[in-house]
Amino acid sequence: MQGPVCPVPLRHDEQIVLGHGSGGSMTHNLVRNLFYAAFDNAPLLAGDDSALLDLPAGGRLALTTDSHIVAPLFFPGGDIGRLAVCGTVNDLAMVGARPLGLTAGFILEEGLLIATLQGVIESMRLAAEEAGIRILAGDTKVVERGKGDGLFINTSGLGWVPPGREISGKNAQPGDAVLLTGPIGDHGIAVLTARGGLALESDVLSDVAPLNRLVEALLSSEPEVHVLRDPTRGGVATALNEIARQSGVAIQLDETGIPVNPCVESACELLGLDPLYVANEGKALIVLPEARAEAAIKVLRSLRYGEGSVQIGVVRAGPAGRVLMRTAIGGTRLVDTLAGEMLPRIC
Amino acid sequence: MQGPVCPVPLRHDEQIVLGHGSGGSMTHNLVRNLFYAAFDNAPLLAGDDSALLDLPAGGRLALTTDSHIVAPLFFPGGDIGRLAVCGTVNDLAMVGARPLGLTAGFILEEGLLIATLQGVIESMRLAAEEAGIRILAGDTKVVERGKGDGLFINTSGLGWVPPGREISGKNAQPGDAVLLTGPIGDHGIAVLTARGGLALESDVLSDVAPLNRLVEALLSSEPEVHVLRDPTRGGVATALNEIARQSGVAIQLDETGIPVNPCVESACELLGLDPLYVANEGKALIVLPEARAEAAIKVLRSLRYGEGSVQIGVVRAGPAGRVLMRTAIGGTRLVDTLAGEMLPRIC
Repeated sequence: MQGPVCPVPLRHDEQIVLGHGSGGSMTHNLVRNLFYAAFDNAPLLAGDDSALLDLPAGGRLALTTDSHIVAPLFFPGGDIGRLAVCGTVNDLAMVGARPLGLTAGFILEEGLLIATLQGVIESMRLAAEEAGIRILAGDTKVVERGKGDGLFINTSGLGWVPPGREISGKNAQPGDAVLLTGPIGDHGIAVLTARGGLALESDVLSDVAPLNRLVEALLSSEPEVHVLRDPTRGGVATALNEIARQSGVAIQLDETGIPVNPCVESACELLGLDPLYVANEGKALIVLPEARAEAAIKVLRSLRYGEGSVQIGVVRAGPAGRVLMRTAIGGTRLVDTLAGEMLPRIC
Repeated sequence: MQGPVCPVPLRHDEQIVLGHGSGGSMTHNLVRNLFYAAFDNAPLLAGDDSALLDLPAGGRLALTTDSHIVAPLFFPGGDIGRLAVCGTVNDLAMVGARPLGLTAGFILEEGLLIATLQGVIESMRLAAEEAGIRILAGDTKVVERGKGDGLFINTSGLGWVPPGREISGKNAQPGDAVLLTGPIGDHGIAVLTARGGLALESDVLSDVAPLNRLVEALLSSEPEVHVLRDPTRGGVATALNEIARQSGVAIQLDETGIPVNPCVESACELLGLDPLYVANEGKALIVLPEARAEAAIKVLRSLRYGEGSVQIGVVRAGPAGRVLMRTAIGGTRLVDTLAGEMLPRIC
């Protein structure tokens, strides 16, 4: 869930629309109005990718959940199974937690082919193996034809944060550097490409990947990391806005420094999308003292899934809660949170 | 998930049918063929209501997950929100775990009324308060109209099992007594009643309730409990078959001793249902040494949700894996696991 924004009251007779699932400000508003109001507790309201619980013996437990509804189920570079494992593994990694185990809850639609389910489970098995995590508990429900969409998967994750790690969206400080582990928008564009009916053909593969080993290696050589966040729904722009708000700082980006694969760039131009708002599933934003940026990038580039790491910006004292971008032509523009839905059912 | 049964191979071109979600032998078979084969690890394969992880500092962590797809969302005595909290709290309680926190993953269908969602969340809040548990993490996704059914909720739960508690479906022993905390079938019949189109009117309320305080109080005075299980999907018959199989024992029931509310009994007669297979959401089966049965029943009857506790059977050495019932007219019949789907979308 996301950090504090000013909630706009919801009307009782309002209906859920796709934008409520965008991960942007409509989602924030729904979550703040309904969920935070009802389930008012510190670990939830912290607004990080996993909730944290102190352990009497040292360290903390991290707990997170994600439901996956991506359409189609299979897309270039991945499928809902790999996504379900990686999404939750990454939410644990983003608070510095070592994954202890996952749960998997399946909602199947009557008529789903067993072979499809088998393919998805095989992907989950491989992704779990790659991440070194076990799926410890599961549940299977079936809904009638027309009451679901093939297959939805919820994965919840449990992890352990070693003592001394204090990674949170609220810890960005003026003078920090903002790093990104590679080019943006691959996942969103790959899923779009996989949907029929779009005049779009591309060779873009989803970047969906488990980042826990990369994070663990980074933290062992650069323990001073302040913030980690994976820019999924709502993209880099929304994730950075969350961090800026949680920490009460400004983040200053440089447009020319943000890596975008040429195929993603041309697909975005064609579709009128801004890659800053397109979902990633195998990238991390890293905030740490600028003095450590170069060393961190060197480590990251030596690691799988970190080869394309670069610095994309810096943290400033103000304007608090804002993300600003120096554009390629020398101006400065405000980079806002995604409002409604841009690409529904991307994860 | 459920304990070992002999899996019948699935064909690749087979399709998912409602019976795969019944909680009975079709569900077992799907789980064994696909999930256990892919995610082969001891805590998962233990087949109890929560997976258990050893803690270095003593005790164990319990992890469980459940997706809730009940239709309709509101029914006499409860709703999907109360069900989602209680179902997962009870899965933790059934391994003797004290709940530490829940996660909640929502899949909303476009067009759902905010007021409906608000009502459900308020129920979750009240149930969590009653159980003394916090909802620590959440996720919200939205699917297009016609790709869901109003609202599905996954809840996953984390709990702590104090050192010394060894409660598992595999621990039933010959000479144990089988207790039940009250009359059966209320939840299933209440949900059926709430569905339009059935020539059925009744005053039956769902028994949906959090059992963690009852279990905690029982265990503090009767620590020798061997097995706890909540007879949800598939009912008491399926839950007892799971225990008989996991422990390699026989369970002998006495038909006249199994409590059924008169309204539930007449609804079951009308619909041709056997209450032994109808879901409960606020009852527990308790297996413990027969010498402790009377004292345990006394404790249970003094507790909320335990007022109707009785002994319903005993554990015998064999025939291993079987549940037998002495019928009201003096014969003995085999009580089998639920096969396919009897009442779809009951939880």
